[in-house]
Amino acid sequence: MTIPSRPSVEIVEVGPRDGYQGITPFIPTDLKISFIERLVSVGVRRIEIGSCVSEKALPQLRDTHEVLTACVRIPSVAPQVLVPNQRRGEQAVNAGARTLVFVLSVSESHNRANVQTTPEQSVDEYARLLKAVPSEIAMRLDLATAFDCPYEGRVQVAATIAMLERLVPLRPGAEICLCDTTGRADPKHVERLFSTCISRFPNVSRWALHAHDTYGRGLANVYAAYKQGVRTFDASFGGLGGCPFAPGATGNVATEDIVYMFERMGMATGIDLEALVAVARDGAALPGGLAGGRVRAAVTAKVQMQARSASSKA
Amino acid sequence: MTIPSRPSVEIVEVGPRDGYQGITPFIPTDLKISFIERLVSVGVRRIEIGSCVSEKALPQLRDTHEVLTACVRIPSVAPQVLVPNQRRGEQAVNAGARTLVFVLSVSESHNRANVQTTPEQSVDEYARLLKAVPSEIAMRLDLATAFDCPYEGRVQVAATIAMLERLVPLRPGAEICLCDTTGRADPKHVERLFSTCISRFPNVSRWALHAHDTYGRGLANVYAAYKQGVRTFDASFGGLGGCPFAPGATGNVATEDIVYMFERMGMATGIDLEALVAVARDGAALPGGLAGGRVRAAVTAKVQMQARSASSKA
Repeated sequence: MTIPSRPSVEIVEVGPRDGYQGITPFIPTDLKISFIERLVSVGVRRIEIGSCVSEKALPQLRDTHEVLTACVRIPSVAPQVLVPNQRRGEQAVNAGARTLVFVLSVSESHNRANVQTTPEQSVDEYARLLKAVPSEIAMRLDLATAFDCPYEGRVQVAATIAMLERLVPLRPGAEICLCDTTGRADPKHVERLFSTCISRFPNVSRWALHAHDTYGRGLANVYAAYKQGVRTFDASFGGLGGCPFAPGATGNVATEDIVYMFERMGMATGIDLEALVAVARDGAALPGGLAGGRVRAAVTAKVQMQARSASSKA
Repeated sequence: MTIPSRPSVEIVEVGPRDGYQGITPFIPTDLKISFIERLVSVGVRRIEIGSCVSEKALPQLRDTHEVLTACVRIPSVAPQVLVPNQRRGEQAVNAGARTLVFVLSVSESHNRANVQTTPEQSVDEYARLLKAVPSEIAMRLDLATAFDCPYEGRVQVAATIAMLERLVPLRPGAEICLCDTTGRADPKHVERLFSTCISRFPNVSRWALHAHDTYGRGLANVYAAYKQGVRTFDASFGGLGGCPFAPGATGNVATEDIVYMFERMGMATGIDLEALVAVARDGAALPGGLAGGRVRAAVTAKVQMQARSASSKA
């Protein structure tokens, strides 16, 4: 693989975690691994492969350790694992994780629903996690309800900043991902929050956006963050996803939609769009999957039309 | 109705023209008029109610004169009619039209497919139309394939500017709408084209964007245009639409998606979102309709959930 000479963005494929977690029928472990291998083969490099949480809370992700073990053997993939506390973080590292994603919410009610603690307790837990795992483990912080909460509505920019004032000093080098948990963020809000964060916390090495497309604003929000300098974006193949604790918030922004937009803008993603669409089609067809995005259908129709045209000429 | 004190955007509802024209089963004239009345009742003010073209080219719109006659009697609606030439423009004015939309394409192959002439001939036709109709008739210019052509691919900014150099001086006061005919425009392209146009043609009173959502970029492109100062946006209720000459380009950006985004951004649209969603639901259910957008499904699910919750409490 050659290093792209065009300016580039980094796509973090979160389908195997956020896309799967709300799906009830268990996706066999082999199939999960096969999807990861296929995603890698189309050029995806960074993948959130699961979540180390209680089997009762998210039965779909109960095989995350096995998936992680398999990923460690796949060349050129950078797997990351979501963890809610120190104990799970240590388990993940022992299983081979080299990037951990620690999640907490700005809003108290969502944090209680998601990880059964107050945000303050989660901040303390993050501090304990940082002390417990070796410093070479890369750390990402997923800040849920950074824009809006399913229970409390719009989250003020000041509230998110106040939370970051406590979190950032604990490890300034951590990547920070602001999550639009409900999909209700608008691009103006995204612009304001990122512009405030980036100027307030200049030492943060990398900012990311986790966008949902529930109300069709996924790519608008991605573009707004891009304009502020953000270059790392979460996305889910086939637009699979949603938060089980955020009613109606189905649909991460689709990886194929975000790839097509950035490639069209002249930004390299390293991902082969047409090959990705084939994987996305199979992902969207998973029993119980809540799929989204627009590029999958449009590109599939185009490919079928070209195939019909070629066969009629043959 | 009170005049909104918040900053505002203007939504041009084009469903009754662009949304309907690709639908094969004839939508009865009474139903068309009823949809317009319902759209007006939820706050929509400006509506493209049809197109004066040959019945053979667009049989669905063969009743545009009757629809226009009915619209003239509806209070507080500003109907506009699309016309491809001088003769049709005069017919529309005689039938009561007070705003005409003249359409031509930047790319030759699309202009030939759409109106059977070269772009140069269309420019001359526009000049004839301007001379033929009274000066109090408001004029909008729809510039199709301003970003991308289904036959010729990406349209260079310079090509669109060159076309505008010929068109703008003919009537500097005309509104100009740049149309993303294929939905393949990206927000960076939208930003560049509008920023160039606005600085190059400072006397143009109003710029508009006609966005399609084929690849999920509808709202991203709307936001990019908004950032350049554009405040007038075409949209289609239920996301109905597409160009019969642009294969795969189904789906204008949905009115309900654009309304929700701007309202969330603090911009007034004058439109009642929940009431609009009910109309959009019925529009999307039209036999043969190609619907799109995300807000319709998400808001419908929320309203149903609230209704279930209320009835279980009763």
